Amino acid sequence: MHMLPRALEELRRQAPLVQCLTNSVVMEVTANVLLAAGAQPAMCDTPEESFEFAQAASGVLLNPGTPSTQQYEGMLEAVRGAQEAGTPWVLDPVGAGTLQHRTEFVRRMLEARPTAIRGNASEIMALAGLGKGGRGVESTDEVEAAIDAAKLLARATGGVVAVSGERDLIVSEGRVTWLRSGHEMLQKVIGTGCSLGALTAAYLGSERGSHWGEDHDWELSDHDAVLAAHAHSGAAAQLAMEGRTNAQGITPSGPGTFAPAWLDGLYQLKPEEITELISIEEV
Amino acid sequence: MHMLPRALEELRRQAPLVQCLTNSVVMEVTANVLLAAGAQPAMCDTPEESFEFAQAASGVLLNPGTPSTQQYEGMLEAVRGAQEAGTPWVLDPVGAGTLQHRTEFVRRMLEARPTAIRGNASEIMALAGLGKGGRGVESTDEVEAAIDAAKLLARATGGVVAVSGERDLIVSEGRVTWLRSGHEMLQKVIGTGCSLGALTAAYLGSERGSHWGEDHDWELSDHDAVLAAHAHSGAAAQLAMEGRTNAQGITPSGPGTFAPAWLDGLYQLKPEEITELISIEEV
Amino acid sequence: MHMLPRALEELRRQAPLVQCLTNSVVMEVTANVLLAAGAQPAMCDTPEESFEFAQAASGVLLNPGTPSTQQYEGMLEAVRGAQEAGTPWVLDPVGAGTLQHRTEFVRRMLEARPTAIRGNASEIMALAGLGKGGRGVESTDEVEAAIDAAKLLARATGGVVAVSGERDLIVSEGRVTWLRSGHEMLQKVIGTGCSLGALTAAYLGSERGSHWGEDHDWELSDHDAVLAAHAHSGAAAQLAMEGRTNAQGITPSGPGTFAPAWLDGLYQLKPEEITELISIEEV
Repeated sequence: MHMLPRALEELRRQAPLVQCLTNSVVMEVTANVLLAAGAQPAMCDTPEESFEFAQAASGVLLNPGTPSTQQYEGMLEAVRGAQEAGTPWVLDPVGAGTLQHRTEFVRRMLEARPTAIRGNASEIMALAGLGKGGRGVESTDEVEAAIDAAKLLARATGGVVAVSGERDLIVSEGRVTWLRSGHEMLQKVIGTGCSLGALTAAYLGSERGSHWGEDHDWELSDHDAVLAAHAHSGAAAQLAMEGRTNAQGITPSGPGTFAPAWLDGLYQLKPEEITELISIEEV
Repeated sequence: MHMLPRALEELRRQAPLVQCLTNSVVMEVTANVLLAAGAQPAMCDTPEESFEFAQAASGVLLNPGTPSTQQYEGMLEAVRGAQEAGTPWVLDPVGAGTLQHRTEFVRRMLEARPTAIRGNASEIMALAGLGKGGRGVESTDEVEAAIDAAKLLARATGGVVAVSGERDLIVSEGRVTWLRSGHEMLQKVIGTGCSLGALTAAYLGSERGSHWGEDHDWELSDHDAVLAAHAHSGAAAQLAMEGRTNAQGITPSGPGTFAPAWLDGLYQLKPEEITELISIEEV
Repeated sequence: MHMLPRALEELRRQAPLVQCLTNSVVMEVTANVLLAAGAQPAMCDTPEESFEFAQAASGVLLNPGTPSTQQYEGMLEAVRGAQEAGTPWVLDPVGAGTLQHRTEFVRRMLEARPTAIRGNASEIMALAGLGKGGRGVESTDEVEAAIDAAKLLARATGGVVAVSGERDLIVSEGRVTWLRSGHEMLQKVIGTGCSLGALTAAYLGSERGSHWGEDHDWELSDHDAVLAAHAHSGAAAQLAMEGRTNAQGITPSGPGTFAPAWLDGLYQLKPEEITELISIEEV
């Protein structure tokens, strides 16, 4: 837990460039989340540009939520570029299990061994072949039900697997962490989950970035980078719902006013506030 | 009018899953409107997935506002899926009359007999072959001018036709309803009309849903479902502009702060407030 | 400077219809910026519709930020339509220099002689062949470094070239203007730069519009139209950050609450406030 404040500082200091190949519904909010949090977004997803860009980016997000043939090709190019350059990349298996076409695609992406996977319980279970998927993009399973699936995927890919829900579960080989943070209002705004995938790529990117810079006194595991992204997003939601993002103490009165307050929370969150707002359990 | 409070309760209780094949400008706001109102959005629009999804969805929206070849194919698949499964679907003839390509497409969609059609006066008139279309997505005709066109389309399709404007007109075989609700500020935010089409699909979906659930004590006609969607959206705008969505009584100071307040209004609106805020005239 | 208040009044009086062929990340915010400022957006970008629409539009924006093959074809059609009808059009060379594919495309667009070009310093330098491009969509060069590139492009195209940054530089044959306006918070919200390109097309469109209407007592040069767009956007940001967009004097507490306040500023800005808020230097 002690590393989370430092991870936030590093994110803002390094402003990692995150290439997002994501669904067209959430492109704008994802870009705004990255900017507010301290990263730099680039929604570069065409077959022609994705290979080149993934080599220069600090991190890459793949979220096939509105999967066009052209974007699928872009995703394959981005993964190829990320692998060649050692760029960390995140797979968000959005809607896996509910639709055959995309389920096959995200399973195929697994073979390329993503640095991290982030989804809800139904998606993670469907991806692991242990469940039937949710209802649209909504999970119909509890996070607890996805523990075995997350462990299986972590072992198969060698990466980190995060399951989002009331509590978040973060699993990697030999480590299981529960994170309590956030607020249920996040469910009422589109893109809060999808942009968490992008934020995860940003933290993974800033972590790696620190290896290349002058400053070698600091290291962060992939597991902790994924945890830091989830803590940042969740703590920002708490700041917003408690009316702590504005001087007047005005609390959001619905999802409409929550969304900008949450962005303000991502922007304002102080390193020392994280540990006050969230709780972590290693099991 | 007595059925509107109950329709709102049912929408929230059933949280219908609405498949939106809509233009890329308004995808995010449409999803947020559905979430705030109490429904569940899924922006699934590819040729590969649309048939399968339309069979599982509670309602489907077709809005060809940024009509790519791929999305057109997805729309044909979605309509086929909706027809096979009896899923209600809404056609929004956005920009009909101003551009030949899309006018031909939405006319072709008419033959598949949408459950409801929602557009502005110029679009409805162009769709019926009785007008020349508006200026871009803006109507250049008054709602009153579209009465004959709406009646003609209602007769031809057997569905409900809604014309949005200062007053909304809702027409089906043998019934004509005028609804007064909303606020002109809605015109200053993109996607308020487009997302009304999605909300219409949600109400049609929750209405049908009630036939399948355990609770058979309730029925809502398609006409009333369309009316309920328009009343929900309009009343939320009034709550927002009157400063009733927040405890401080702060009123929006432009379209920027109106948009989140309107979403809060969609989320907060109480069943008993609807009848206070709107007025209905059956003619 | 005296012409800026009048230009704002004309924009609102004429409500120019702006066709935007822009990247999918910023479509919604761009449409909302145009609506708030007083223009009318139409995100029409397909190969089938773009030629026809560009002939009817008041102004056209080309922003290849997420460049699909289909949208590239639409852009070529839109330019052809704009040229035939004399519709002013704006080129935003977003990401030029960082990626080869799009750099080639925007260079090719140069030959069609855009009415105006708007970009950041790195993009303008890359477009002129005098720099290497920035980092994603972020400029790594100062505006000052782009003066020669801007002059070269202005001479080559016969159009106006605007370089956005801490100060904005506006260059045309024989004229160089520096504009100080805006606030750095604009950098933390996606689409503020891209929508400035659309607003530029709106001002160019309303200027031309005035030649066609009954009202011939007024003329605005292309240079001043580009300047007016930048001043409008910048002054609105200042109104927002100073808490002048709402009666309570509440200032934004981050990028989340800044974005709606900026839209309110675009909507509210009074002609007489512009000259108070901005400063211009002709060199």
